[in-house]
Amino acid sequence: MNVGIVGATGYGGLELIRFLHNHPAVEQLALFTSSEEGVLFSSKFGHLMTIVDRPLQKIEEDTLAEFDVVFTSTPSGVTSKLLPSLVNTGPKLIDLSGDFRLKNLASYEAWYGKKAAPFNAVQQSVYGLTEWNSEHIRQATLIANPGCYPTAVLLPLLPLVKERLIDPSFLVIDAKSGISGAGNKPSQTTHFSETNENFSIYKVNTHQHIPEIEQALSMFAHVETSITFNTHLVPMTRGILATSYAPVTAGVTEAQLVACLQETYDKHPFVRIVTGATSLGTNRVKGSNYCDILVKVDARTNRATIVSVIDNLVKGAAGQAIQNMNVQFDLPQTTGLDVVPFFI
Amino acid sequence: MNVGIVGATGYGGLELIRFLHNHPAVEQLALFTSSEEGVLFSSKFGHLMTIVDRPLQKIEEDTLAEFDVVFTSTPSGVTSKLLPSLVNTGPKLIDLSGDFRLKNLASYEAWYGKKAAPFNAVQQSVYGLTEWNSEHIRQATLIANPGCYPTAVLLPLLPLVKERLIDPSFLVIDAKSGISGAGNKPSQTTHFSETNENFSIYKVNTHQHIPEIEQALSMFAHVETSITFNTHLVPMTRGILATSYAPVTAGVTEAQLVACLQETYDKHPFVRIVTGATSLGTNRVKGSNYCDILVKVDARTNRATIVSVIDNLVKGAAGQAIQNMNVQFDLPQTTGLDVVPFFI
Amino acid sequence: MNVGIVGATGYGGLELIRFLHNHPAVEQLALFTSSEEGVLFSSKFGHLMTIVDRPLQKIEEDTLAEFDVVFTSTPSGVTSKLLPSLVNTGPKLIDLSGDFRLKNLASYEAWYGKKAAPFNAVQQSVYGLTEWNSEHIRQATLIANPGCYPTAVLLPLLPLVKERLIDPSFLVIDAKSGISGAGNKPSQTTHFSETNENFSIYKVNTHQHIPEIEQALSMFAHVETSITFNTHLVPMTRGILATSYAPVTAGVTEAQLVACLQETYDKHPFVRIVTGATSLGTNRVKGSNYCDILVKVDARTNRATIVSVIDNLVKGAAGQAIQNMNVQFDLPQTTGLDVVPFFI
Amino acid sequence: MNVGIVGATGYGGLELIRFLHNHPAVEQLALFTSSEEGVLFSSKFGHLMTIVDRPLQKIEEDTLAEFDVVFTSTPSGVTSKLLPSLVNTGPKLIDLSGDFRLKNLASYEAWYGKKAAPFNAVQQSVYGLTEWNSEHIRQATLIANPGCYPTAVLLPLLPLVKERLIDPSFLVIDAKSGISGAGNKPSQTTHFSETNENFSIYKVNTHQHIPEIEQALSMFAHVETSITFNTHLVPMTRGILATSYAPVTAGVTEAQLVACLQETYDKHPFVRIVTGATSLGTNRVKGSNYCDILVKVDARTNRATIVSVIDNLVKGAAGQAIQNMNVQFDLPQTTGLDVVPFFI
Repeated sequence: MNVGIVGATGYGGLELIRFLHNHPAVEQLALFTSSEEGVLFSSKFGHLMTIVDRPLQKIEEDTLAEFDVVFTSTPSGVTSKLLPSLVNTGPKLIDLSGDFRLKNLASYEAWYGKKAAPFNAVQQSVYGLTEWNSEHIRQATLIANPGCYPTAVLLPLLPLVKERLIDPSFLVIDAKSGISGAGNKPSQTTHFSETNENFSIYKVNTHQHIPEIEQALSMFAHVETSITFNTHLVPMTRGILATSYAPVTAGVTEAQLVACLQETYDKHPFVRIVTGATSLGTNRVKGSNYCDILVKVDARTNRATIVSVIDNLVKGAAGQAIQNMNVQFDLPQTTGLDVVPFFI
Repeated sequence: MNVGIVGATGYGGLELIRFLHNHPAVEQLALFTSSEEGVLFSSKFGHLMTIVDRPLQKIEEDTLAEFDVVFTSTPSGVTSKLLPSLVNTGPKLIDLSGDFRLKNLASYEAWYGKKAAPFNAVQQSVYGLTEWNSEHIRQATLIANPGCYPTAVLLPLLPLVKERLIDPSFLVIDAKSGISGAGNKPSQTTHFSETNENFSIYKVNTHQHIPEIEQALSMFAHVETSITFNTHLVPMTRGILATSYAPVTAGVTEAQLVACLQETYDKHPFVRIVTGATSLGTNRVKGSNYCDILVKVDARTNRATIVSVIDNLVKGAAGQAIQNMNVQFDLPQTTGLDVVPFFI
Repeated sequence: MNVGIVGATGYGGLELIRFLHNHPAVEQLALFTSSEEGVLFSSKFGHLMTIVDRPLQKIEEDTLAEFDVVFTSTPSGVTSKLLPSLVNTGPKLIDLSGDFRLKNLASYEAWYGKKAAPFNAVQQSVYGLTEWNSEHIRQATLIANPGCYPTAVLLPLLPLVKERLIDPSFLVIDAKSGISGAGNKPSQTTHFSETNENFSIYKVNTHQHIPEIEQALSMFAHVETSITFNTHLVPMTRGILATSYAPVTAGVTEAQLVACLQETYDKHPFVRIVTGATSLGTNRVKGSNYCDILVKVDARTNRATIVSVIDNLVKGAAGQAIQNMNVQFDLPQTTGLDVVPFFI
Repeated sequence: MNVGIVGATGYGGLELIRFLHNHPAVEQLALFTSSEEGVLFSSKFGHLMTIVDRPLQKIEEDTLAEFDVVFTSTPSGVTSKLLPSLVNTGPKLIDLSGDFRLKNLASYEAWYGKKAAPFNAVQQSVYGLTEWNSEHIRQATLIANPGCYPTAVLLPLLPLVKERLIDPSFLVIDAKSGISGAGNKPSQTTHFSETNENFSIYKVNTHQHIPEIEQALSMFAHVETSITFNTHLVPMTRGILATSYAPVTAGVTEAQLVACLQETYDKHPFVRIVTGATSLGTNRVKGSNYCDILVKVDARTNRATIVSVIDNLVKGAAGQAIQNMNVQFDLPQTTGLDVVPFFI
């Protein structure tokens, strides 16, 4: 399999390289850039010395068309212009930016503040939440890989909402992310001295992942709802923990919530339902493609606390993208992703 | 003023020393310990070399009775035994442990899993949320200094609930704390390698600060409600950020919420209402006694997002305790506490 | 005393504000900027809300000339142009940039890669290592405040070299700094995700503080020597620890080294000589103006290991600058600086 | 290959599991403990849920004797008692504790403050610095896996000392380690709040790795020397950076030092010689078995600055242990270790 990565110098791109380098079905890995053509990749990223000693290539449609798979991991607003003309030319396209996720173009333009991708390409794109959409992913030409927060939030909520075990009309989702989610571009809000020893909320009530989560709740759990969703920056590099709250349907027990999750993900190796614990941390999944889930019902309020953790760069980006590639090429989903989490 | 500190070697004790050392009304500062009698304090805590070069003293009732103020900053379950006999013997007692906060002894025993303090002492104790209880604090013999989480949560919520601008029947409070809140005793959950680069939820739905918050909502806002409250550990030392969610009362606007907070805290120098921002971080208050508050209403859901930040060791512990001492001795509340936050 | 700060938005400037706000001799504090004239300071730095609610002022010579003291805390290359015309116009000038430290202009230009300040101004400037130069500082019109690394390195080394207790011809100095030393301007090397969980050496053998240290060894200890000096970035915000190595003069004991340091700094409250310890950390001095020193002789090699810690933003910048101001105005050196270190 | 791990619950043990789980030649992995027999491993370490769902086994000689390889990763003083009777009974023994490293038993007892292992077992053990001792490692029954610091220090120094390009009589080695090097046992010095935002030196001039480094300099570079060696704790989890200083032999150039290193490690995939850089950080090797080396000569002093970085838990412990296993079983050294460093 010949694989191209556009946006190789971003953190999503670097994680793609970390996993694809050891993927048994990947023969060739080519790295594309908009601005640093010819630069030796390992001279820019010293950790890849002797591992990826090849130059960055110029992004050209003809060249990209010859690959079996092209991953695009760019800031939003870039692939909406690049990819449409590549659809149906040959390569499987897996886009890690948000440009093809929202079916409603007006919604994209309102939340992202950018021009949406062309209607046809968006319609043809398939939302790449692997555990929930593998049939369509297998056939897809263009995959809209889910956002990091939506992945962490949807995996635990979709089964519970779909089965109406919790009330989707009062969903409060409080999400926390490591700072790598902000990408590799320096700014005041990612400047070490101002981020270290500082926990902050940002984009209060206005994060662009809100419509993506609501769309998926509609698509997979058949519920139209407006969620409350907020995001925080944790002074660490990797990891998302999302704490979701919802009233439990009358008569439903904690055991039923747990059973629903266990049944849903019984055959899905990357989703693990945790029981018997009163705490859960992002270090359970660091560096890996796992999503771990803990659910507890508070008998005092009959509300559920639903906790999930992922590595934002893996299950929240590059890992799930490769999982989708595996689905498309009929490989076991764990191919190239079967690594043990770091813990420390 | 002669001041004694029981539990001087804990983080609450160290912060008391940090501020009291420069407090203009404090003449003498004595440090008491249950186990390290005679040890030179600065030999144990090198940062206090040349600053606090005195030995730890043995805890003796007769000695403590001679002080003007005695701060107790011990693990829970200690001062419930130590303090009752000191009440009314002379010194103002300011307890930073949770032993005298809950008026309902059965509730204490259920949530803390420990024997409660004697009924009479608990009844006589005054809850030390300075901005809300200064009249009683002024007269008090025994002050139950509030918990760190309750302080961060109550300051923004009390005015809004009291005025019924938000609906207290669906309060969801998602709190996050730096690790100093766990105290100075080493354990696996405070072990650097397992805490660093790890964000975790703990004690899901069972934190002992829940009844304290509910009691204060009843006491000051006259509402009986069961809250949803969860706590998380942030890989940083200091700081609490609490994100609270509640439905907004029909017809009430964001501007009204902001105005209510501004009016409530107009004469209170340590509570600052932030406007015009879409983010808020703990570094605004690091090392200081401030509580900063941001409130936003999400027009899509008509729910409020109410964010507050404090330094858990200052406004959440030692700072508020000294603020209470100032009230008791008719000093300006800012005396000895007028420091500029660290920011970095 | 009316005080102006040029470069108030940098970390040195913010620390000046943190201390000067509580300095009993400071009446008025004015903040100057080259680019953000009229911006409310507390709108830019939220932690200063209600504390420093004044607008940034335009830098104008006439205005600056009216102050009693002007601190300049800018990147290198700025004050070399701004200050010369202000010398002898009235205000005491205390420059925290490196522009006036090196008496040899060619050396400045070689190490900094910038045009040096005018010869006359450099000649008139006084090196502000307070404990070693207070007589000249008292008279000075223009103080060149020492660099952070030189302060940490010189305080322990100068007495030992001056007394020839160690051999200055083989001085190896291995210094480590928190990341705030790199200032507030975002860049790839201060980007959280690439700095966190990463310890690195930088500018191997070429740091511009090398000639400053050598000049001070010549000036105060009367030794001409070429040192080995390297600098590392620690994933923390504040603090410098310098580990220096030198052969001990034949016949000299560890006790003599300790005694020399103790005698030198006996009357200097900010320098503390640590004995009886086998470890030393930057948290001893965090947030304060102390420099703590530990010296050990290895009997196996007859070499001394000399360790010193400072807060780079305080004793290494703003604190020492205010200490110098205190000297100039015949105030006790500790005025406004008598804070307890943070420890945690 | 059937593999046993004694001390599986320590950080060395966890890293062995992380790599051996994906090692193509490992069929069975058994985990042994001295105190938690029967405990499900994944209930203790949640990150291994569904990956290592087997119980801890009791340490019994007969059981251990049936494995092909037994890794022991325990605190010092344990395997000196456990392993001698297992030598020559069948399994290859690879000991990650320091108990068999020092050939001089008196030296062990002096530096470790513990009873040394039996003479015969120590004599039979082979020092497992893979790149320098693979011939003996291939034949060894008992491998003394090198310490983390010695690995980081010896890989760059041995070639230069062996070829007499630098002067070993004045070697100053300043080493810095992440906190995972202190193991998984909680203590005040690994307590988050006291370690975070704190850089410290510890065990000044007395670290037990000193005799190990000197022994290896003698063994492989044929030089008897007393080194100066100090160790520091960095507030991060993983990584060692060692900065070594030595006079360069007269007439020798930087290019010769670089060439010597490049030639020595030309066929060794895990040692990478960095050129063209003026900085080097531990994130180049995080999570991997690489050792990256940078050497610079300061023309002002004619001294070399020699910098090396490793992941202390990988090349400094579990990774090198597996590399040694690969050598023993005639597998390519990179088998199971061919992972891409994390960088972030």
